Amino acid sequence: MNHLTDALHIPDTQNERDERHVAIQRVGVKDVRYPLTLRVAGVEQSTAALWNLDVALPAEKKGTHMSRFVAWLDAQSTPMDAAHLRGELDVMLEKLHADEGRIEARFNFFLRKRAPVSGLQSLLDYGGAWVAERKAGRTSIWAEVGVPVKSLCPCSKEISDYGAHNQRSLVTIRVELKDPLGAPIEWQELVRFAEESASSEIWPMLKRADEKWITEHAYENPKFVEDLVRDVALRLNADARIGRYVVDVENFESIHNHSAWARIERN
Amino acid sequence: MNHLTDALHIPDTQNERDERHVAIQRVGVKDVRYPLTLRVAGVEQSTAALWNLDVALPAEKKGTHMSRFVAWLDAQSTPMDAAHLRGELDVMLEKLHADEGRIEARFNFFLRKRAPVSGLQSLLDYGGAWVAERKAGRTSIWAEVGVPVKSLCPCSKEISDYGAHNQRSLVTIRVELKDPLGAPIEWQELVRFAEESASSEIWPMLKRADEKWITEHAYENPKFVEDLVRDVALRLNADARIGRYVVDVENFESIHNHSAWARIERN
Amino acid sequence: MNHLTDALHIPDTQNERDERHVAIQRVGVKDVRYPLTLRVAGVEQSTAALWNLDVALPAEKKGTHMSRFVAWLDAQSTPMDAAHLRGELDVMLEKLHADEGRIEARFNFFLRKRAPVSGLQSLLDYGGAWVAERKAGRTSIWAEVGVPVKSLCPCSKEISDYGAHNQRSLVTIRVELKDPLGAPIEWQELVRFAEESASSEIWPMLKRADEKWITEHAYENPKFVEDLVRDVALRLNADARIGRYVVDVENFESIHNHSAWARIERN
Amino acid sequence: MNHLTDALHIPDTQNERDERHVAIQRVGVKDVRYPLTLRVAGVEQSTAALWNLDVALPAEKKGTHMSRFVAWLDAQSTPMDAAHLRGELDVMLEKLHADEGRIEARFNFFLRKRAPVSGLQSLLDYGGAWVAERKAGRTSIWAEVGVPVKSLCPCSKEISDYGAHNQRSLVTIRVELKDPLGAPIEWQELVRFAEESASSEIWPMLKRADEKWITEHAYENPKFVEDLVRDVALRLNADARIGRYVVDVENFESIHNHSAWARIERN
Repeated sequence: MNHLTDALHIPDTQNERDERHVAIQRVGVKDVRYPLTLRVAGVEQSTAALWNLDVALPAEKKGTHMSRFVAWLDAQSTPMDAAHLRGELDVMLEKLHADEGRIEARFNFFLRKRAPVSGLQSLLDYGGAWVAERKAGRTSIWAEVGVPVKSLCPCSKEISDYGAHNQRSLVTIRVELKDPLGAPIEWQELVRFAEESASSEIWPMLKRADEKWITEHAYENPKFVEDLVRDVALRLNADARIGRYVVDVENFESIHNHSAWARIERN
Repeated sequence: MNHLTDALHIPDTQNERDERHVAIQRVGVKDVRYPLTLRVAGVEQSTAALWNLDVALPAEKKGTHMSRFVAWLDAQSTPMDAAHLRGELDVMLEKLHADEGRIEARFNFFLRKRAPVSGLQSLLDYGGAWVAERKAGRTSIWAEVGVPVKSLCPCSKEISDYGAHNQRSLVTIRVELKDPLGAPIEWQELVRFAEESASSEIWPMLKRADEKWITEHAYENPKFVEDLVRDVALRLNADARIGRYVVDVENFESIHNHSAWARIERN
Repeated sequence: MNHLTDALHIPDTQNERDERHVAIQRVGVKDVRYPLTLRVAGVEQSTAALWNLDVALPAEKKGTHMSRFVAWLDAQSTPMDAAHLRGELDVMLEKLHADEGRIEARFNFFLRKRAPVSGLQSLLDYGGAWVAERKAGRTSIWAEVGVPVKSLCPCSKEISDYGAHNQRSLVTIRVELKDPLGAPIEWQELVRFAEESASSEIWPMLKRADEKWITEHAYENPKFVEDLVRDVALRLNADARIGRYVVDVENFESIHNHSAWARIERN
Repeated sequence: MNHLTDALHIPDTQNERDERHVAIQRVGVKDVRYPLTLRVAGVEQSTAALWNLDVALPAEKKGTHMSRFVAWLDAQSTPMDAAHLRGELDVMLEKLHADEGRIEARFNFFLRKRAPVSGLQSLLDYGGAWVAERKAGRTSIWAEVGVPVKSLCPCSKEISDYGAHNQRSLVTIRVELKDPLGAPIEWQELVRFAEESASSEIWPMLKRADEKWITEHAYENPKFVEDLVRDVALRLNADARIGRYVVDVENFESIHNHSAWARIERN
């Protein structure tokens, strides 16, 4: 791709030598919206993801090649999974002549759910992310889901003569895939870790019989933010495919204008 | 202020004649963060507001004077109220040689609240806005509050053997002040229209006795999004100081990942 | 769909009579993320749109049927265009037994662009929206695009010995389609109204020869925010397929921490 | 404060023993808006900050005391600086019976600036944050500024016959204060590290003579995102009061719809 610009004798300022002796850990492009294809529950989903792509730049190099990140993006065509992402990180690093670098893509995906009593189907949206990083000679691949659920306060239930305050919560699970070339973790599996730990999972479309079910089910399963984050951690601890992880739970409290929040990390 | 630039013989491109014969309804500055002083419950509060300021530009004028908007902003020093805002809109329009224009300031403010049982005090944050507009020879002054409250679903309560889903809601009330020079409406009055219409008001700091109270109080006052918006409208209808209004209620549903929403407008 | 809940004898609180005598202009669901298929430049694009759906509720009715909005959403399968949207608004209103209502879907879409000199291709992302509204017996269909472009300041160019400040701008064009069943306006046509009015259009991937072109092209086409909004308006005025419109231009000024902004409306 | 609830015999569910054997690294309140007073350039500024407060929770404890975080917040009254923050972290940890914890407050602050030629004064807004953390027996205090500046592309200048693309950039500097009880770093000093490293600093109010100055000054000081982040790092390296740091620079590119971004960290 340099032939064209060489022919025009356009100077290449980024390629000059830098004399400041300061290495840059990460440099690249941020918030590039570009398509992404995923495979979710065996079916392909296309979406408009938000990408951050960067590499390490040695002290003596003046600049990186910003357009090559977009060229890499534009070459993506097959559905992204952990094994493919691992290979594509190598492709990107080679294109950029870099030893270290990072790919991050954030997106929304859908799972078709059946309401608990009526059986009516609708699509619930989840946040998702792929992160691939090469650092100090080691590549790590992370997957992330953001799962909306319901939490009901055990204290409120215990102390009140009737009712209990409850609210929407967001469970964010980031897991390192221990062996990205081994048995994959499906998006719906990560989602279930969160949904099964909550006072109740939630659905886009509910009839009255479903609403009765979810109300009573949540009342029977009260959870503090501390309970929810611990119950997710226990499920992650039991899965041999998962390495390091970070679990965040945020309860958008219905009795306050702020959130209750908790995090468990395994390094 | 033009002396300086005149002296330097710097051409003034914005002041040239435009030949496209297209008037511009609104042109100005957007998202300028600048201090604002309010008087809330008799006490001054300083905050960093986000301002939008614009004027109408006739077809024959090439451009407006952007720096004069900021000069107007920088001259603000006294606490903003409806009467003051009305006068300051005239000042801005004169400065810009404009017949029509608009001032909008968005900010957060605080009210000190006492928890319902323990009496413990804490500060709840609300959204607020001032809007002043001159159009077709008429000036209108609007005040807006964004009030976080709790809503509890009547259907869920009615059909369930125990419990009821509830959630945080945001009530946004925009009212035109019929007579900006007459008896003022205080911020806390606008807030109370929303809080008294909800299943329960909310507080930043609650002890267990308060949490019991709010849980039971909300359970005794179930409200659909339709009930909440209507009950606010009834309160606004009963206040002679209020002209046109718009009330929005958004329930951040705890059984869905989307909101229930309603609006009542009076023109 | 009521058979199920009828069989369970679950009371239907929303269907009761309301005695407050207050009509609700708009009530429904907000910020529902659900898939949307578009046809852009002859090719189908799938994306995760954000939907707001609402209807008018007469004074005597207690509540609307929230789950039917999601049922309507879940039934969407063919690519959305103006004619289809017009029909689907009727379907939604009938499902909700409503005379007035509104559908709004916001999304991102992509157009493949060729860099001006190198000819390299990449995908630029745009904001888009469909809005269909039935009010007072009349249906209107609106399309909206949000187009990122470059603006270069004429004043800065004129007064400076070298250089001129420039920045990214966002041009938002909302047009009512005069005859939604007639000759359609393509997304790329709306985009071109903005791109041709700017100091320069922009691209995701540029080589140095392209960067030289865009730099010089923008310098040769300086535009105030007022020029940009007027030049878009002139293009819209010349298109017989367009009825009412609103054009917003926001320059994310590179010499300030705020925006310059302008709007032209045709009613 | 427990007397009241004890007297009412309200059970204290959070105080029970947890049997899951899972410690929680961080649990607390998030996005609490509460006032904050700062001292900037010798003058007090009041603002509405966004606070996150959390502590570590041992495996055997069921829950933390959420209301005590708000009680801590409500007790804040003196202007926040590094020494005061260090002491207040201890107060918060004691209140929560915790060994580890974290205070984070995010806010906007203003500095009065003089335009470079006209000398006209106006207030520029900056992002700011205080972070105090106690972990593994060690307390660290961090200050952060977000500084809007102008960057002009050296490549575009070099290869173009006239002009050069430029844009607004955001420089985010997070520094650990080596000795929070020693000579303090003023907010305006952190801001200057960024402004002096940019192609040009920016101002809210500029007359034409100033606009000429900033245009030419930026053209004479072209900087890649890599140059800007390195030049900030060199300034931080030269200041003995600063320990660890992270510098991010984001250029909101005017020739793309995405950002160029770079980070340098010192551990």
